[in-house]
Amino acid sequence: MCSLPNESFSIELQQLDADDVSGRKQRTEWLLNSPAQPSFCNELINSVTETVLPQKNSKQYGGGAVFSFLQGLFPILSWGRNYKANMFKHDLLAGLTLASLCIPQSIGYANLANLAPQYGLYTSVVPPLIYAVMGSSRELAIGPVAVVSLLLSAMITEIVDPAVDPIAYTSLVFTVTFFAGTFQTAFGLLRLGFLVDFLSHAAIVGFMGGAAIVIGLQQLKGLIGINHFTTKTDVMSVFKAVFTSFHNETLSPLNFVLGCSFLIFILATRFLGKRNKKLFWLPAIAPLLSVILSTLMVYLTKADQHGVKIVKHFKGGLNPSSVHQLQFNGPHLGEVAKIGLICALVALTEAIAVGRSFASMKGYHLDGNKEMVAMGFMNIVGSLSSCYTATGSFSRTAVNFSAGCETVVSNIVMAITVFISLELLTKLLYYTPLAILASVILSALPGLIDINEAYHIWKVDKMDFLVCIGAFFGVLFVSVEIGLLVAVSISFARIILDTIRASTEVQGRLPGTTDTFCDITQYPGATRTSGILIIRINSGSLCFANATSIRERMLKLVTEANGSEENTKENVHFLVLDMSNVMSLDTSGIAVLEELHRELVSRTIQLAIGNPRLRVINKMKTAKCFEKLGKGWIFLTIGDAIDACLSLKIADPSSINC
Amino acid sequence: MCSLPNESFSIELQQLDADDVSGRKQRTEWLLNSPAQPSFCNELINSVTETVLPQKNSKQYGGGAVFSFLQGLFPILSWGRNYKANMFKHDLLAGLTLASLCIPQSIGYANLANLAPQYGLYTSVVPPLIYAVMGSSRELAIGPVAVVSLLLSAMITEIVDPAVDPIAYTSLVFTVTFFAGTFQTAFGLLRLGFLVDFLSHAAIVGFMGGAAIVIGLQQLKGLIGINHFTTKTDVMSVFKAVFTSFHNETLSPLNFVLGCSFLIFILATRFLGKRNKKLFWLPAIAPLLSVILSTLMVYLTKADQHGVKIVKHFKGGLNPSSVHQLQFNGPHLGEVAKIGLICALVALTEAIAVGRSFASMKGYHLDGNKEMVAMGFMNIVGSLSSCYTATGSFSRTAVNFSAGCETVVSNIVMAITVFISLELLTKLLYYTPLAILASVILSALPGLIDINEAYHIWKVDKMDFLVCIGAFFGVLFVSVEIGLLVAVSISFARIILDTIRASTEVQGRLPGTTDTFCDITQYPGATRTSGILIIRINSGSLCFANATSIRERMLKLVTEANGSEENTKENVHFLVLDMSNVMSLDTSGIAVLEELHRELVSRTIQLAIGNPRLRVINKMKTAKCFEKLGKGWIFLTIGDAIDACLSLKIADPSSINC
Repeated sequence: MCSLPNESFSIELQQLDADDVSGRKQRTEWLLNSPAQPSFCNELINSVTETVLPQKNSKQYGGGAVFSFLQGLFPILSWGRNYKANMFKHDLLAGLTLASLCIPQSIGYANLANLAPQYGLYTSVVPPLIYAVMGSSRELAIGPVAVVSLLLSAMITEIVDPAVDPIAYTSLVFTVTFFAGTFQTAFGLLRLGFLVDFLSHAAIVGFMGGAAIVIGLQQLKGLIGINHFTTKTDVMSVFKAVFTSFHNETLSPLNFVLGCSFLIFILATRFLGKRNKKLFWLPAIAPLLSVILSTLMVYLTKADQHGVKIVKHFKGGLNPSSVHQLQFNGPHLGEVAKIGLICALVALTEAIAVGRSFASMKGYHLDGNKEMVAMGFMNIVGSLSSCYTATGSFSRTAVNFSAGCETVVSNIVMAITVFISLELLTKLLYYTPLAILASVILSALPGLIDINEAYHIWKVDKMDFLVCIGAFFGVLFVSVEIGLLVAVSISFARIILDTIRASTEVQGRLPGTTDTFCDITQYPGATRTSGILIIRINSGSLCFANATSIRERMLKLVTEANGSEENTKENVHFLVLDMSNVMSLDTSGIAVLEELHRELVSRTIQLAIGNPRLRVINKMKTAKCFEKLGKGWIFLTIGDAIDACLSLKIADPSSINC
Repeated sequence: MCSLPNESFSIELQQLDADDVSGRKQRTEWLLNSPAQPSFCNELINSVTETVLPQKNSKQYGGGAVFSFLQGLFPILSWGRNYKANMFKHDLLAGLTLASLCIPQSIGYANLANLAPQYGLYTSVVPPLIYAVMGSSRELAIGPVAVVSLLLSAMITEIVDPAVDPIAYTSLVFTVTFFAGTFQTAFGLLRLGFLVDFLSHAAIVGFMGGAAIVIGLQQLKGLIGINHFTTKTDVMSVFKAVFTSFHNETLSPLNFVLGCSFLIFILATRFLGKRNKKLFWLPAIAPLLSVILSTLMVYLTKADQHGVKIVKHFKGGLNPSSVHQLQFNGPHLGEVAKIGLICALVALTEAIAVGRSFASMKGYHLDGNKEMVAMGFMNIVGSLSSCYTATGSFSRTAVNFSAGCETVVSNIVMAITVFISLELLTKLLYYTPLAILASVILSALPGLIDINEAYHIWKVDKMDFLVCIGAFFGVLFVSVEIGLLVAVSISFARIILDTIRASTEVQGRLPGTTDTFCDITQYPGATRTSGILIIRINSGSLCFANATSIRERMLKLVTEANGSEENTKENVHFLVLDMSNVMSLDTSGIAVLEELHRELVSRTIQLAIGNPRLRVINKMKTAKCFEKLGKGWIFLTIGDAIDACLSLKIADPSSINC
């Protein structure tokens, strides 16, 4: 008989009574008779149905069901009935504040998207109205946003140069918007809301930071008053263009002076607004105020004749139809659809991130799939009425929130106000200097750069930080798409790396417990049982990518346990493999388990498997793996496995090679 | 006070004594004071060192260490000292059998690789000798193989057409071989053995099957005697080329008759060899016999003047140097390096798969990294001595094994035999018909197609089967590289999908145990505790890709538990989140945990976290997550968490909103 370490073993011995054995056998029986899993086809169908079909509320039929369906599609039917005059007061104030910020921003973003200024205002009329009827967020301010405008201009300019053929360019923008809307609606209807998650939080932080700097650099054109600017967005091209224009063009310093002074004015009001919460309206109306003041100044001083660049053409009136401008049979259709897809995803990501963060502040839940349908529908309708891709704006949503909006009615108020300005005020905007639009955009950018969050990400998770700076530098030095691609690739590579780098841990019994087994690295107090090595696979899947390395680690651990000083008294006779973490197993994993078993047998070590999961058990059954490993050596808990090992040791010590 | 279900609760009450509480607190203390993890940089450095540096045997110094190092590099130093005359008898027999199979196969494979026939024989001389000194497998038969020959010809033909410029083509083949060897050596030295695992077992089965058919189709050229064949490898191109040549060329049926009759002869001997194990040498020498017989027949009947295509040029003598043929400054260097990388990986995958399966039959272990260095070195030396990429051949290794080889000396015997034939017999091969070479290759192909294994994969794992047929059809209908790419992409997409599709499970207490909690789907006998919902995250990582969907599933489970018939008596007051599966957590995961906590608070449900792992705890500490979730609600085991929930319920029932 082997010489056994006394204390821990004698405790274990006492537990080995008849009851235990029968209980253990019963539990193994339960394990082996786990319910069969649905077949692959059923599982696939279930998974698709679960994703595609919305959860039905089975309690309603007939008219109630129709109304409930309509309520789901048009949330206004739910909250509209409880809408009170008191709420409208708040919404009116918020809507007007929003409009005063929205008008200059819309014109600026249209400029950034290489479109005529009225298209920005159009985009602030139709989409907010549609969203007000279909959307479920109460704070989201809908309209054109900086990042999507940048995306459109950066990607469509590669197909058609807006300076050469502005009409074809505008048609392409509407077509892209139509595609974006269609994709968004489709994602929502197919319940593919999870696609938005592919841009992780870290990726968004990096991407937004990079995009803000790129957008800022694009404003140099208006701020300095350059005629020949680059169509590329990366830092190098922009600096080169600025450098060239300093040499070749005669630039009027008036543009720069005008832009900078109003930028300082807007930033100063923002500073005041932050210091005194009651003055929240001041930074919100400052951009509009700047536009009005600067337009007046230019008009009165005739500065446009002294080199100050002005907006000039500005078509007023209601959104015209753009149905005939959609192009579905050009040579660039594939390209346009791709741009639509990218814009759809980026727009959704921004809107849902913003919407969710404000919803969670007010304590309600936002259904990503419903939001997608609403956004998609508003963009489809938008593309037919001369709007470009709209989404939820971060800066304006924050203003809407601080202005005390109660419901999405503030968006309606804003849309009506913008519509009235389109009808009445556009002629007054003829003299608006471009430099002011640049400074309005520039003033909105600091909100997109979140250095604190980047630092937090760096501190918590270095790989996430890599995603973040990957997106940042990708956008900054290559292009917007490459930045996104880099971020998504690193994110997914990390998932694969986590699987490849799967580790194993040796477990020990936690003092004071009968069968709680824990990582001995994490809990240095946990004690090993002599002659038995408990190893847990620390990976959700045992597959081709990690199976071989996991096997080699286990064999190394066995060798180490046999060779270490404290264990020289007794060699390892049992390897208990805790499979509770392993959720999926492929054929390579099964092959490795069988190989491991063979190699352990050649070292006279018995392999016991503890707590395999449903999916794993069913797969091992199909592969006839239990026949090879020995059916008696599968246990529901690690405690059971160890009891079985110990009882075998006592019953037949000669079988163990000390 | 809430009305509580009696039975289970009263049992739980009895366990709530003072000891339990102090034990639980102590365990939480252990958990929160888990040892800090090494910093990111340290972890990175450790991981790299562990991968790159071989495990040192610290007990040896000085001369011993040098000898041990040399023994590691040249395993012949270990086994050579115990080599006995008795073993040589077996090795001599195996080596001669091997050579008789190797000579016709090498000529055929050289033909497949679009090289002059002597290069195949050269490749069977130098690489086996180098491997004999450096390799650690005892059975592996080294030389040219079908799949690598196909890869080389398919990929290099795209750069240089061998029909137009055979000298440039041959130079490129040597350069590719040099790169392949360099990559292999580098992988071995950097201990990147895991790279070989990226081609999963399923991918290899599919790839080999597809490659076998493609190789077989390529043999139609020799078998039918076509002059103008396609350089592409996909099925469509080959059939088109065959069809065209039937129309445009005058084909001699003699080629086909000759090839088919000897193919039938070889297959018949194989059938005999399988029926009677003692005749194992018959299928092994049948190819050589066919070559000799058919050459004689052509020579005697002058059939080459009647349309039978023959080898013609065959340069004899020892391998000439090819140092001057390596091209490192061509325009195709990048392309050549890429081909070298693909060949290196495919060659290693085949050799290591074959080597490992025979090693595990004989019960010894093969170190992948050492094998890589040996293979890399043999290919580098090979590329300098007119050899193309060599690796371990599946069919010849099986013959070597059944011929009873004892050590790698059989490779030396084979190499010497091939060398002697090169010196003496090459002139005799002038009249060898090309159709015979085709039938020698064709006869080796069925071994590469493993339909049984494909069926097994289909039964066990549908996703693995998708990888398998992806590789198969990719190779068959597009190209060899695309087939590999498809297989690797599907394999990795599966890992990502597994993470995205992460599920949650509701756990219950297993009857007859105090704190074993199991999936209630897997163990229908497990009972829930009233008022407490235990949810386990079934994923190795809680990250951007699955965090939102996991949160929504959990909230849905909470809603369901509150609404279900059996639980109407009591709502859920505690959600115990079992995190024992979660090995990695990113910033999105942390954000979702905090959001979940906030949403649960708004539903007056307390979140308790059970068994977070070392890495997760440290990350949550850095992110100051415990401060937000409540430090008192983290527990080492699920049992502890439930005890804490129950004791709170008793101590302060008013705090619970029934």
